[in-house]
Amino acid sequence: MKNNKALVVGTMAFDEIITPTQESGKILGGAATYIGLAASFTNAAIGAVSVIGEDFPQEYLDLLTARGVDVTGVEQVSGGKSFYWKGKYHNNMNKRDTLDTQLNVLADFDPKVPENYLDAAVVMLGNLAPAVQQQVLNQLTPRPDRVVLLDTMNFWMDIALSELLEVIKQVDVITINDEEALQLSGENNLVLAAKAIHKLGPEYVIIKKGEHGALLFYKDHPFYAPALPLEKVIDPTGAGDSFAGGLSGYLAAQQTVTPEGIKEGILYGTAAASLCVGAMGTEGLVKASEEDFATRLHELERLRTIAQK
Amino acid sequence: MKNNKALVVGTMAFDEIITPTQESGKILGGAATYIGLAASFTNAAIGAVSVIGEDFPQEYLDLLTARGVDVTGVEQVSGGKSFYWKGKYHNNMNKRDTLDTQLNVLADFDPKVPENYLDAAVVMLGNLAPAVQQQVLNQLTPRPDRVVLLDTMNFWMDIALSELLEVIKQVDVITINDEEALQLSGENNLVLAAKAIHKLGPEYVIIKKGEHGALLFYKDHPFYAPALPLEKVIDPTGAGDSFAGGLSGYLAAQQTVTPEGIKEGILYGTAAASLCVGAMGTEGLVKASEEDFATRLHELERLRTIAQK
Repeated sequence: MKNNKALVVGTMAFDEIITPTQESGKILGGAATYIGLAASFTNAAIGAVSVIGEDFPQEYLDLLTARGVDVTGVEQVSGGKSFYWKGKYHNNMNKRDTLDTQLNVLADFDPKVPENYLDAAVVMLGNLAPAVQQQVLNQLTPRPDRVVLLDTMNFWMDIALSELLEVIKQVDVITINDEEALQLSGENNLVLAAKAIHKLGPEYVIIKKGEHGALLFYKDHPFYAPALPLEKVIDPTGAGDSFAGGLSGYLAAQQTVTPEGIKEGILYGTAAASLCVGAMGTEGLVKASEEDFATRLHELERLRTIAQK
Repeated sequence: MKNNKALVVGTMAFDEIITPTQESGKILGGAATYIGLAASFTNAAIGAVSVIGEDFPQEYLDLLTARGVDVTGVEQVSGGKSFYWKGKYHNNMNKRDTLDTQLNVLADFDPKVPENYLDAAVVMLGNLAPAVQQQVLNQLTPRPDRVVLLDTMNFWMDIALSELLEVIKQVDVITINDEEALQLSGENNLVLAAKAIHKLGPEYVIIKKGEHGALLFYKDHPFYAPALPLEKVIDPTGAGDSFAGGLSGYLAAQQTVTPEGIKEGILYGTAAASLCVGAMGTEGLVKASEEDFATRLHELERLRTIAQK
């Protein structure tokens, strides 16, 4: 029988974010952090695999634990420094420049999946070096009904394409933004890009279009999940990770994974992303209640529905 | 009782279109042309008001008539030349430059609404000088259940803003693209822009986002109609007019106009636009059968639906 475990792999980090109106200072960040927090709105059992330095505050770990994220698989390196990223958004918030990246403990990350998550039915490979994602896959107990999701970005296409392609072969669901889908496929059209990416392995290709929503391609039939129009976007950091978290958490919480479930999961991901971008860093996810999340899901339903409610 | 008449006002013209792969030569164009052709997929009775020169081929008029568009209100000016527009698309097809515009007979256009369309239940004011749109409104027989739709563009905001605002006051539905919505409202966010445009008059604000679909704001609740992802976009010319045509034709064909009807109409507009962009100029609309149109509607339904079909 399928379990409700979602194994989440990704960075836990310090972020420093500059938007046109705010500077965050050094705050909690990292793909696994956002994914875990977003997945916590579902009934999944969430286990995180990551690496942090000695400088990583215990309160950050406590925060994740309080949200039901099992941090047994988060290795803390004595004397090490946590991964650090600093970025600055352009005026329209659609682009950003990386000002600083310090890999620190991430450079030698040797992920270890905790015993009780080796059989996880859902595995979410968050944005990270493909070689590390592969090491995680190698440790897992085989199970035919497992769903493996991958989130990645152009950085890995540029510097580790062959490892990335090897991982992509093994995943069921890939989430990738529109520009990166074009880059990965070499196409200049999203429909053709999705077809090409299907051939690389994933049965489900999810193209993230930011404020325009997300497009799922499955058996070449598209499904479009619009994003909630928001009056204010404070900080887009982590929106893609939050999307991946809502999606993978939803899938883990289901008895079986079906195409319909993937679509519902995309709505969960969209709801999580909309909460994320409403505040700096993880604050939008951290401050949101279960009710806030349910409200976003309801608003998304209304956004998609003809019947006036 | 509401009638099924859609009065359509707009240009009929010669277009010359250059895309990255094709040059059209001098072909049939104009807002009223695209609107009329798109509306012809519905059960509306369509009456066009426009102006053409002596150079306008009879076969173009015959084409419209064959599609059920009543061209009684299209004035042909003896010795006059038809409106002419030449434009060139950038590589990504999302932007274009106007290379030439010759107003010709449009410069002195004095629209006359045919007797039998004075009571039209739906009036679609296609992209045209606001003063001309106003002249059309002035001629109509008052009727409380009339729905007036307006399509406009930045050009009129730049050179005739006060007349445009006066027309906007009198319309129920405005269709406008995203950048133009920001320009018209002075906001830098679509939700805020829609709120501001509501205050200018229209109860329904429809923001066209091209390949990303269209957003309806009604009583501040948004509805998102995604566009069909297409493998090939041949020529975006007329997509917005086709959208307006499908929408207004649908509304005219209904017994009453409701918020639900506006949303369904947006899907009709989206279907028409997707046919339009698949070929040069009006060819996509002209060659499409009723069945082709129904197929697009079905694909749009599937694009929006969780249940796997």
